[in-house]
Amino acid sequence: MGRTARPVRVGELVLGGGNPVRVQSMTKTDTRDVEATVGQIRRLEEAGCELVRVAVPDGEAAAVLGQIRRRMGVPLVADIHYDYRLALQALEQGVDKLRINPGNIGARWKVEEVARAARERGVPIRIGVNAGSLERDVERTYGRTARALVESALRQAEVLESVGFSDIVLSLKSSDVVTTVEAYRQAASRCPYPLHLGLTEAGTAWAGAIRSAVALGALLLEGIGDTLRVSLNADPVREVQAAWYILRAVGLRARGVELIACPTCGRCQVDLMAVASRVEEALAGVEAPLKVAVMGCVVNGPGEAREADVGLAAGRGRAVLFRRGEKVRTVPASRMVEELLAEVHRLLEDVRPPGAPPVTAEQPAGRPAGPEEGGSHGGKGIR
Amino acid sequence: MGRTARPVRVGELVLGGGNPVRVQSMTKTDTRDVEATVGQIRRLEEAGCELVRVAVPDGEAAAVLGQIRRRMGVPLVADIHYDYRLALQALEQGVDKLRINPGNIGARWKVEEVARAARERGVPIRIGVNAGSLERDVERTYGRTARALVESALRQAEVLESVGFSDIVLSLKSSDVVTTVEAYRQAASRCPYPLHLGLTEAGTAWAGAIRSAVALGALLLEGIGDTLRVSLNADPVREVQAAWYILRAVGLRARGVELIACPTCGRCQVDLMAVASRVEEALAGVEAPLKVAVMGCVVNGPGEAREADVGLAAGRGRAVLFRRGEKVRTVPASRMVEELLAEVHRLLEDVRPPGAPPVTAEQPAGRPAGPEEGGSHGGKGIR
Repeated sequence: MGRTARPVRVGELVLGGGNPVRVQSMTKTDTRDVEATVGQIRRLEEAGCELVRVAVPDGEAAAVLGQIRRRMGVPLVADIHYDYRLALQALEQGVDKLRINPGNIGARWKVEEVARAARERGVPIRIGVNAGSLERDVERTYGRTARALVESALRQAEVLESVGFSDIVLSLKSSDVVTTVEAYRQAASRCPYPLHLGLTEAGTAWAGAIRSAVALGALLLEGIGDTLRVSLNADPVREVQAAWYILRAVGLRARGVELIACPTCGRCQVDLMAVASRVEEALAGVEAPLKVAVMGCVVNGPGEAREADVGLAAGRGRAVLFRRGEKVRTVPASRMVEELLAEVHRLLEDVRPPGAPPVTAEQPAGRPAGPEEGGSHGGKGIR
Repeated sequence: MGRTARPVRVGELVLGGGNPVRVQSMTKTDTRDVEATVGQIRRLEEAGCELVRVAVPDGEAAAVLGQIRRRMGVPLVADIHYDYRLALQALEQGVDKLRINPGNIGARWKVEEVARAARERGVPIRIGVNAGSLERDVERTYGRTARALVESALRQAEVLESVGFSDIVLSLKSSDVVTTVEAYRQAASRCPYPLHLGLTEAGTAWAGAIRSAVALGALLLEGIGDTLRVSLNADPVREVQAAWYILRAVGLRARGVELIACPTCGRCQVDLMAVASRVEEALAGVEAPLKVAVMGCVVNGPGEAREADVGLAAGRGRAVLFRRGEKVRTVPASRMVEELLAEVHRLLEDVRPPGAPPVTAEQPAGRPAGPEEGGSHGGKGIR
């Protein structure tokens, strides 16, 4: 099931062709401030970001792309609007991918020139259409519809193909969820290109993540999408975290701790919200895909705690600790967070590949031997 | 398109039958503490909660349900596990709906007795299946699968139907998104009952909302679901907010302000995150469905700002204010939040029905004349 896009190489990654759906984000620093930009890129990489895009508003920003790229470990994408010469400059600086916006890049010959230069260097181009910046004639003909987004993208793809360029990725973003979902469905059926998923201008951290999860989750569940960026008006690290939560929810990829926690109700006899927050915070740096359950009553508690890699079913005054379906021991409620964390770290040590560095709560775990990609949904995180 | 479920009356609401998808939540207080419980219910009602469920762990909790119900404005649902006599007691107290869990309610005759008593009073029953508390024989036969959830629910529905009871609502919750989505799809095609959507034990406010949005959003986009509860390990008001964000994202219903805000990037010349947070906070109490855009650069800024009911496209030192596609005026950046808020309140006043109370930022707006239900996605919020 699912759509298999034509493979497109971006640095050392391949988008499409059955490869994992990749997580990306974009810096929010002034690109010309190399230190700030590289600092933010490193934080993004630590959070699991696999491609990083930077804005290139002018020649000064374009001129530092090479410096930035040399100091990062993942492919660099240059975001170009209006001026095709910035795209040419970015290519000279050695970026791994270009993003151009057909709504404002201008005349056909400019796009062709960019395509030829990119082809020579083996650099792919994303045609990034936004509902907020469509070409006028497209908007006149189709309105601000899903169809308009798709027509704009495919028309630009034809221009690239006309000069023998086919390393094309498409995005079709609107700030409206239903329009965005419909646009990607149409594009998925009408072209072979990898699709970069995103809802644009989604909003603040919480509301924006919810809206993005609806749009991107629905598409990924249909097998559509080869890379995703969650746009949030927030620290870009949140964008990466949200993207991973979405990928894990749809069962495609897992990274870090998934915390199963009951919502609590009138049955709950412990302050489970405090427990859940402490556990989530303490395990935020773990990179290994783990499922940890923190449950507050007897109804679903033992059932969920047994299904997790490490689980806790709390009752009055005490809690039962489970590890992969087996009851480990009963602990006093006052010590349940410490005991749970200790058990998680014991598990991480047990699955740590020989030679890998030890794991602490604050330090990301070396990715364990278990399956990182695919197939881990619905069951335990790591084996 | 979409599934039309058999209509089931719950107090003054009807679930299914083409009626709006209703938002519900559950209290986290000790039910026996009537003041605390009623206080939380009122906060939920103010946030837009349309049904409230309370846990009924014992006879003492059951005995205060009547008192609680008299002090609330929306239907009250009693959440029953293990002891069928608590269900009978809840019915005597006048609750509007029962939830029973087939995994722990026990022998057939007990369920039949509850069904007969509910039928006499015209009270519907939700059969609420949870993957964490399946009947042993169901789990043995089907594992913890979507199929198991559905078989458990349909078997219990047959027991109810066998005594002439058909005011049935089903839920089929797992903490796994893919299992949950699959279970609801199967149930939607195999029975006529309204479906109560939920992902159980979804997690903390942020992660849990993202996972719930993937599951519930995908189902609602397929036309599946008649009411929803977002389970979060957080203040239940967040559950209601998240539910409304999801309903709005899928284009079904709108309430309050949808804030379109660009994620910012290296092009942005204002502190747009601070602006977005201030605007979101100031408009949190507005109930009227409005679309407000806060944009930080020239690429998509004017396009998105024009599409909103009220929009701001900020640039260096100044911002352009739009109202429903028309440019209103240019304002200095230092005053842009105040000017935006003033314009929003002017709009709310203009659409206020005659005789309705005036609107302030802190006070919820009277619902305006515009369409509250359906059809508002993709366009302006209110007309």
